[in-house]
Amino acid sequence: MQHNLHDTIVLLTRTPTALDALLRDLPETWTLRNEGEKTWSAFDIVGHLIHGERTDWMPRAKRILQFGETKGFEPFDRLAQQRESQGKSLAHLLDEFARLRAENLNELRALNLQSEDLARRGLHPALGVVTLSQLLATWAAHDLTHLHQISRVMAHQYREAVGPWSAYLGVLHCAGHSAP
Amino acid sequence: MQHNLHDTIVLLTRTPTALDALLRDLPETWTLRNEGEKTWSAFDIVGHLIHGERTDWMPRAKRILQFGETKGFEPFDRLAQQRESQGKSLAHLLDEFARLRAENLNELRALNLQSEDLARRGLHPALGVVTLSQLLATWAAHDLTHLHQISRVMAHQYREAVGPWSAYLGVLHCAGHSAP
Repeated sequence: MQHNLHDTIVLLTRTPTALDALLRDLPETWTLRNEGEKTWSAFDIVGHLIHGERTDWMPRAKRILQFGETKGFEPFDRLAQQRESQGKSLAHLLDEFARLRAENLNELRALNLQSEDLARRGLHPALGVVTLSQLLATWAAHDLTHLHQISRVMAHQYREAVGPWSAYLGVLHCAGHSAP
Repeated sequence: MQHNLHDTIVLLTRTPTALDALLRDLPETWTLRNEGEKTWSAFDIVGHLIHGERTDWMPRAKRILQFGETKGFEPFDRLAQQRESQGKSLAHLLDEFARLRAENLNELRALNLQSEDLARRGLHPALGVVTLSQLLATWAAHDLTHLHQISRVMAHQYREAVGPWSAYLGVLHCAGHSAP
């Protein structure tokens, strides 16, 4: 399937609301526990999504439009949330994510991108040449990879509690972890 | 981690709201497409969750309390939604799921289960002896396995559109599919 900008934008509007409905005021069992050493909790993941809003998606889109392949993207810091989320509550992070996402989508809509813009190329520090279309599709798929991860991290907390049903629960057999 | 009935109930209240926020009125690209032959779309999955509310979780909980291991559970029909969702809209299914879940949670709370109740044993047609505690933990983890699946099915639609970023998106490498 081809990338469709309208479908992408609609999905991007949903993620903050869906995460809010799932996570706000949930017991810490579900929000602060992770899958073991050096893995992320739902709290960490929301912080990671915030950092993406600040430094990844729209800054990279604008760099493609301004510089094309002549000036590569800044590398993305996958551990920034360890620093930036410190001392904040999950409710605060959910608010921050919703606000930044709304601002970014306003900016994206205002660009009024046409198909020739979407075909423009930029330079990723590790992946090489990418298009604006691929970047925006990845923004949506990145939301989904972290919704996927959050549901897995939460299910992990009941790995023992479900007893023999673990055999039937695909989420407990997921190896689809995002690479650094 | 042990099963905690309060944590289970709180999570079970969230799933209908979170799915509603994610899916209602979303373009059909996201809600009606699946991962290929004999796989499920988000629409199919919501139908499956509805069938669980009708025939699986509370009926099985009540059977354990009433009959213990002397009368096994009815097998669960994993394909019922193909029949039952026919002709319905996703919005209708989301409403139905929310209503049934709320009714079931009212009934569950009214049982006022104590730890000796949670330890009671029942008979699963394939898994053998299970406890009420395991059944209720599985109800919550089952929500999460399907949230995990929905995010994967949706991301699958952009498998090509993300270009080289597919290498970084764990959701596109998930093999954690639920068994029948």
